[in-house]
Amino acid sequence: MKLLSFEYQGRASWGAVVGEHVADLGRAYPQYPTLQAYIAAGRTLQAGADAASVPADIPLSAIRFLPVIPQPEKIVCAIRNYHDHHREVVAAGLDRELSAHPPIFLRVWRSQVAHGQPILRPHCSDSLDWEGELAVIIGKPGRNIPEAQAHEHIAGYSIYNDASIREWQFHAKAICAGKNFESTGAFGPWMVTTDEIAPDRPLKLVTRLSGEQMQSTTTDDMIFSVAQQIAYASTIFTLVPGDVIVTGTPGGVGWSKKPPRFMVPGDVVEVEIEGIGVLRNPVEQAPQ
Amino acid sequence: MKLLSFEYQGRASWGAVVGEHVADLGRAYPQYPTLQAYIAAGRTLQAGADAASVPADIPLSAIRFLPVIPQPEKIVCAIRNYHDHHREVVAAGLDRELSAHPPIFLRVWRSQVAHGQPILRPHCSDSLDWEGELAVIIGKPGRNIPEAQAHEHIAGYSIYNDASIREWQFHAKAICAGKNFESTGAFGPWMVTTDEIAPDRPLKLVTRLSGEQMQSTTTDDMIFSVAQQIAYASTIFTLVPGDVIVTGTPGGVGWSKKPPRFMVPGDVVEVEIEGIGVLRNPVEQAPQ
Repeated sequence: MKLLSFEYQGRASWGAVVGEHVADLGRAYPQYPTLQAYIAAGRTLQAGADAASVPADIPLSAIRFLPVIPQPEKIVCAIRNYHDHHREVVAAGLDRELSAHPPIFLRVWRSQVAHGQPILRPHCSDSLDWEGELAVIIGKPGRNIPEAQAHEHIAGYSIYNDASIREWQFHAKAICAGKNFESTGAFGPWMVTTDEIAPDRPLKLVTRLSGEQMQSTTTDDMIFSVAQQIAYASTIFTLVPGDVIVTGTPGGVGWSKKPPRFMVPGDVVEVEIEGIGVLRNPVEQAPQ
Repeated sequence: MKLLSFEYQGRASWGAVVGEHVADLGRAYPQYPTLQAYIAAGRTLQAGADAASVPADIPLSAIRFLPVIPQPEKIVCAIRNYHDHHREVVAAGLDRELSAHPPIFLRVWRSQVAHGQPILRPHCSDSLDWEGELAVIIGKPGRNIPEAQAHEHIAGYSIYNDASIREWQFHAKAICAGKNFESTGAFGPWMVTTDEIAPDRPLKLVTRLSGEQMQSTTTDDMIFSVAQQIAYASTIFTLVPGDVIVTGTPGGVGWSKKPPRFMVPGDVVEVEIEGIGVLRNPVEQAPQ
């Protein structure tokens, strides 16, 4: 099933995508006020049955998407986790080695933006870059999760555009600053439950900027697998339902192009992942 | 006033320190269920008057401290923000330059531990290091805050021990991993409201490990001032009430000592800041 968070007639809810309509599960199951609460209750694999008893009466075109999980407790993001992105970063002049451990940084939920909503370019920099990525949503909580059991902790998969202000990313070796501007982390349009995507199935990932293909890979080019990333993160953090693991971007980011290319107001950026869908965002200048 | 979060007779609350007692403001003002809600209501400078009408009838010795803000939305931490810490890091062999911008990383609230509660050494590493720091608690929300107005956004000051797993910190240039283990970020014992500490007043900061002085500085050795740190962070994030800015540690961390010295189970670590108090934590091995 495809599960999503949305706003309809001014009310925030969540539900399941059924064809071109949405079944409002948040209204039908008030004991689960958010998708996060539904995931925490361990019900995602029953979503098909739960949705079957609810009318799919809201047209997809009538909703305003919200980030799939609007307020994850943690958003743990991978750095240089595709071989071809690592190669392009080194070719562009950064002194970086393949890490023996999965390099990570954190994003705050307030930096997120939904499918269809504008990614905002701040006034302090023009270096707004795209990063199409596979997002993993945690279902079962855990700490010190062995790699072999990591997939049991996944509730589903989605798409992230980990848009970055490159200039601010390089203010410090800890790249946090350039990765946390408001309305830069696009997340959506929905999550797909694990019954539809087998563990470690290679998925095609493509990023397009205003129609032009910028990134194209399959997820088996990852340096650290999804299971390895979950095992590593859970050594540090207790992972909880709704936490998001953003698994890294492949080659083809704007910063490494010659000359560099960044997103500008008026652009439309799309990230498509096989079996999940298309995350689409216009780019606008921030209002202040 | 000294404001704190605590547990008493199994109930979480918050209040004001009056001598050796606590006035339970959470019970008296149910419209502010948390210290964060009270800060968001802009009432911290009326805390003295609010506390005066409430019996200070709980002995400090009877409460269990909670982290001053148990679940800040954001914990923004400074990297190498004291001149003497920068010098010791370079002397110890790290290739680091003074940054033109305040280098930052993020901590998750789940990594926090209260005054008096054990800091936990994880099983994956012995390199548990101390970092005594001044913590700034945000009162008034804001984005793109000018440096000259930054102090208006502060609700109060507290103490942080930004304890770090050094080995994991160096897994990646983004030091996030070693800075987020559970029960490593000690925060307390309370916050002191801004009427008691003038903007930019140099405060003496001392860290002691099992009675032995390890760090000693005054906060005017900071490379980026509190105001500069707030201005910078607010360019990236909308700062909200209860957000915490952890302003960096001075020289004297264990990693840079020859030979290196780390905290071991059985140690007691104290961070004392003039005008605020003493944050004290035993060190224990993590249970798993």
